[in-house]
Amino acid sequence: MEVQIAVAKVNKYASSESGDTLEVVERPNGGLSVVLADGQTSGRGAKAVSMMVVRKVIGLLAEGVRDGAAARAASDALYTDKYGRVSCTLNIASIDLETGTLVLSRNNPSPVFICHDDQVDCVDVESSPLGIRRDIRPMISELELEPGLTIIMYTDGLTHAGKRRGQPMDVCNAIQAMLEEQDPTPQELADSLLTHAVNLDEGRPADDISVVVMKVVPHEGDMVRRMTIRLPIQ
Amino acid sequence: MEVQIAVAKVNKYASSESGDTLEVVERPNGGLSVVLADGQTSGRGAKAVSMMVVRKVIGLLAEGVRDGAAARAASDALYTDKYGRVSCTLNIASIDLETGTLVLSRNNPSPVFICHDDQVDCVDVESSPLGIRRDIRPMISELELEPGLTIIMYTDGLTHAGKRRGQPMDVCNAIQAMLEEQDPTPQELADSLLTHAVNLDEGRPADDISVVVMKVVPHEGDMVRRMTIRLPIQ
Repeated sequence: MEVQIAVAKVNKYASSESGDTLEVVERPNGGLSVVLADGQTSGRGAKAVSMMVVRKVIGLLAEGVRDGAAARAASDALYTDKYGRVSCTLNIASIDLETGTLVLSRNNPSPVFICHDDQVDCVDVESSPLGIRRDIRPMISELELEPGLTIIMYTDGLTHAGKRRGQPMDVCNAIQAMLEEQDPTPQELADSLLTHAVNLDEGRPADDISVVVMKVVPHEGDMVRRMTIRLPIQ
Repeated sequence: MEVQIAVAKVNKYASSESGDTLEVVERPNGGLSVVLADGQTSGRGAKAVSMMVVRKVIGLLAEGVRDGAAARAASDALYTDKYGRVSCTLNIASIDLETGTLVLSRNNPSPVFICHDDQVDCVDVESSPLGIRRDIRPMISELELEPGLTIIMYTDGLTHAGKRRGQPMDVCNAIQAMLEEQDPTPQELADSLLTHAVNLDEGRPADDISVVVMKVVPHEGDMVRRMTIRLPIQ
């Protein structure tokens, strides 16, 4: 098997600072975790909040702490630091090679999508962002790592795209259409969703948008791990 | 401009754990840093050392600490923890958007390569790994971020490839040949160097090998940040 991960991330229009923070961390017992946070409001303050949450979470994950416990700890730390006045969404997607599973932790009103081949399942059970109460806990889904599995998660910039013009994005339909027509790579899927959203906002994203796609495919080729990053600079 | 980063990483033959650790961290004042460490010996002990060093460094970088200071701190922490008995190499390559520069910090006997178009410069000034003395400091190169700049860094698995059979790899020549013949993408460059090394080891790498390539190209297209990861699972 091979796990392929793709990220596409854009800032709110005319904003040099994104309130979204995304980091990838290696798990000490094998595998890796993608951690995505979106701090309340936008600009520098939101960035500081989402960076603080992501740093807390990846620090704990790197020590071997379980995903759910790391999310709770980040929530409590944010609550303590900001007196419950600032919220932050958090998604963790982990490839756990110890258990052979993909673990999704969600503290985000925005749903995550779990797809088996072209069967799309929208997971939108109510879920609270971090930092607003004492007893925050994540919604957790644990899935067998097997070829054909695709998961998609994102920040609310995607959900809100087009709302300004009364044309909100139907994310589920967009995913379904892509998966039915072709066998898109994770990067094609992430790019396509992001482009769709930016177009609905007439090329000027009303919020930061980050999209993460993970796909499990049959293994072809060597055992080399690869990573590519593209960072445009203004 | 756009900065493109590629990583190719393979474990020592028949070893499930790599002594090399690589992580990417966002810099709080803009840009990102790639941190690569190789712990002494191989297997689980080496992994623990390189993870400890990388965690220390990225934690400090995320707080805004300068690269050189982070490397010194990691060296002192390792020295204290292991009584000076365990060494670890460290390379940091930072895209610093505050200064508009690419900053290379090296605590590694293996050289780094700095290329302007097809002009290859091998930087091999003597440089000590972390953790073996109290006064360890990194060799630092600061380069203007401009199209045509390519930097290549790697762990010593690449340098040692083929030595077992008396056919050591000539990394400089391999890079020169690739850059003269074509305009390779960073991933092509990284993959090609890794493949060359693995072939010299007859398909059974004698050590963990990690190769990082950063390239600055003229900017084409949108302002979307992208990342792709491929993780083969046995």
